[in-house]
Amino acid sequence: MDFLSNDKLVIVGAAGMIGSNMAQTAIMMRLTPNICLYDPYLPALEGVAEELYHSGFEGVNLTFTNDVAEAFTGADYIVSSGGAARKAGMTREDLLKGNAEIAEEFGKNVRKYCPDVKHIVVVFNPADITGLIALLYSGLKPQQVSTLAALDSTRLQHELAKYFNIPADKIVNSRTYGGHGEQMAVYASTTTVDGQPLTDIIGTEALPRQEWEEMRQRVIQGGKHIIDLRGRSSFQSPAYLSIEMIAAAMGGKPFRWPVGTYVNNGHFNHIMMAMETTLDRNGVHYKEVEGTPEEKAELDKSYHHLCKLRDEVIAMGVLPPIPEWHKLNPNID
Amino acid sequence: MDFLSNDKLVIVGAAGMIGSNMAQTAIMMRLTPNICLYDPYLPALEGVAEELYHSGFEGVNLTFTNDVAEAFTGADYIVSSGGAARKAGMTREDLLKGNAEIAEEFGKNVRKYCPDVKHIVVVFNPADITGLIALLYSGLKPQQVSTLAALDSTRLQHELAKYFNIPADKIVNSRTYGGHGEQMAVYASTTTVDGQPLTDIIGTEALPRQEWEEMRQRVIQGGKHIIDLRGRSSFQSPAYLSIEMIAAAMGGKPFRWPVGTYVNNGHFNHIMMAMETTLDRNGVHYKEVEGTPEEKAELDKSYHHLCKLRDEVIAMGVLPPIPEWHKLNPNID
Repeated sequence: MDFLSNDKLVIVGAAGMIGSNMAQTAIMMRLTPNICLYDPYLPALEGVAEELYHSGFEGVNLTFTNDVAEAFTGADYIVSSGGAARKAGMTREDLLKGNAEIAEEFGKNVRKYCPDVKHIVVVFNPADITGLIALLYSGLKPQQVSTLAALDSTRLQHELAKYFNIPADKIVNSRTYGGHGEQMAVYASTTTVDGQPLTDIIGTEALPRQEWEEMRQRVIQGGKHIIDLRGRSSFQSPAYLSIEMIAAAMGGKPFRWPVGTYVNNGHFNHIMMAMETTLDRNGVHYKEVEGTPEEKAELDKSYHHLCKLRDEVIAMGVLPPIPEWHKLNPNID
Repeated sequence: MDFLSNDKLVIVGAAGMIGSNMAQTAIMMRLTPNICLYDPYLPALEGVAEELYHSGFEGVNLTFTNDVAEAFTGADYIVSSGGAARKAGMTREDLLKGNAEIAEEFGKNVRKYCPDVKHIVVVFNPADITGLIALLYSGLKPQQVSTLAALDSTRLQHELAKYFNIPADKIVNSRTYGGHGEQMAVYASTTTVDGQPLTDIIGTEALPRQEWEEMRQRVIQGGKHIIDLRGRSSFQSPAYLSIEMIAAAMGGKPFRWPVGTYVNNGHFNHIMMAMETTLDRNGVHYKEVEGTPEEKAELDKSYHHLCKLRDEVIAMGVLPPIPEWHKLNPNID
C-alpha cells in the first residue's frame, strides 16, 4: 500500500461535514497513513472515526482526539475546517467575529504544539481573514499558510461549461482573484473556452455582456446557491479541493487553481487573498496577476474590501495594528 | 486520465448523504467517466451535482436527472441508496414497508429501461429484503444483484482491533453472515488476530467470553451507535464499501468482504443474505459458509428471521408467493 508520504496530517474540525469528508478524501488519495482527526466535540468525532474504521481502508493509522496538544504535537500538515458553518441567509462576513477568535486560538496552538509544521491550509470562512489571523498567531512563514480560494474558480469553470454546453476540461485557466467573499474579482482574460479567449467571446452573440454579468453573479453566489438547493452549506467541494492543496504541499500533483496567500507587494499590502500561485513542496508562492484595466480595478476593489474586514478584526482587538505584526510574527514584514 | 472502464454507472438516491458520497467516491476511484446521478428530488440532486462540478475533477462526464428513464437507459452498473434513511430509534426492519415498495419500483425500472445492465448493488435497508425484491422485479440473474453486507464484518474487524489495540490490518477475515439486521450471525472461527485464531482466544484471559459477547452486541448495534454519536445515520462507510463493490464488479480490485446474495442451496432457500462470496466481473458467487455448530445455529436463526421478513413482504402483496417467483423472474428457480 503506497502512500505519498509518512507525514502526520491533522484534520481540524473533523467532526463536521467538511472535516469528515476531508478525512475520507485524504485516505482515498493515499496521502499518508498517519492521519489524526481533531475536534473539540468528541462524540461526533468518534462517530466520524468509526465510519472511517468501518470502511476497511488498508494500511491506515487513523487516530482521533479532542485534545489539541495530542493532535497537534508532531503535526507535519494541518488542514482546518474548524470554524462555524455558514447558515442560510448569512454572508461569509457574518461569520467574521466568531471565526476570527477560533483562528487566533488555532494559530496559537500551532505555535505552541507544532512550530515545525510544514504547511497549513485554512478553509473556514471568511478564509482570507481566518487564514491571515492563523498566519500571524502561528509564527509560520507566509509560504507555509494557504487558504482555500479555488472554489470560485471552479465555479466559474462550471458556469462556462454549462453555458457553452461543453466539457469542463475545455474551459482552461478560469480564475477569480482577491477575496473569497462576495467582493471577489471574477476574471475573464485568463480563460480560454475550447481554445478561444473568453474575452473575445464576451459581448458577442455567443455570450452577450449581460449574460456574462449574470454568470459572474452566479459564480459569486455559488456557495449560497448550494445552500438553497441542498439545504446545507457546500462540504464536498471544499473538502476535496483543500485536500488537493495538502497533496500538492506534500509534493504530490501540482495544485491547478488559485490559492489564498499572504500578499505584501507594494500594491496589495498586509493581506491574505487569492492570487495566481504555485503550491508545492516549497509552499505557496504568488505571481503578479495580469488582467485588463477593468479586472485590475475589480481586484483593487476586492482588496480594499478585505482591508476593511482586516481593519474590523484589528478594531475588535483580535489582531494588533499592522506596525506591530512583526512583533507577533517575525516572519511578517 | 485513466479510468477502469467506460461503462455507464448510475447512482440512485444521489441527492442523499450516502448517494452523494458514492458519487464522489466513484469519481475519486476513477471507475468510469460516465456517471449519472439520479434522484426524484431535483433541487438537492442539482446541489450535489454542482458540488461535484465545483470540485474540478478532470475527465469526468457527470450528468444528473430526476427522469428515471433518462437515468437508467444504457446503464451498465447501478448502485442504489434510494430508500428512506433509518432515523434514531428505528430498527432497519421498521423501514420494511416503505422501502419494499421503493425496491419493487426500482426493480421494475431496471427491467423496463436497462435489462442489459451488468450488475446492481442495493444498499438501502433492510438490504437483504430490498435486494431480494429488486432482484425479482428486475428479471436479472441472481449473480447480477448484490447487497451491501460488508459493514458488519468491518465493524467486527474494528471492534477486535480496538480491543486488542492492534492495527486493523492484523485482524484477518473477520466475518458476519446472514442478515444485515439485528439478527446477523457474528462469526469468530473465520478470523485470525495477529495470526492467532480468534476462537483460540475467546474464553481466555485475553478475551473472556463475556467480553466477546459484548463485542458481538457492539457489532450488531454498530449502525445505531453511529446515529447516537453523530446524530445521523452512517453514510461514509456504506457509500465507500458499496462503490468498492461496484469496482470489483467492473473487474477492478477484488472485494474483500461478504456480499449479500441470492441463496437457494437446499439449506437456505429463496433468500438474500450475506454469504462467503466472490464478487468480480462475473458477478457475485457464494460458497458454503464453514463454522462451528454454534455459529451454524446462529446463521440458521438469522436465516429464519429473514424468512419471516420475506414472508411479511409476501403477505403485504409486494412479492408473490414463492412458487410464483419463477413467473416474475425466470432466472429464479
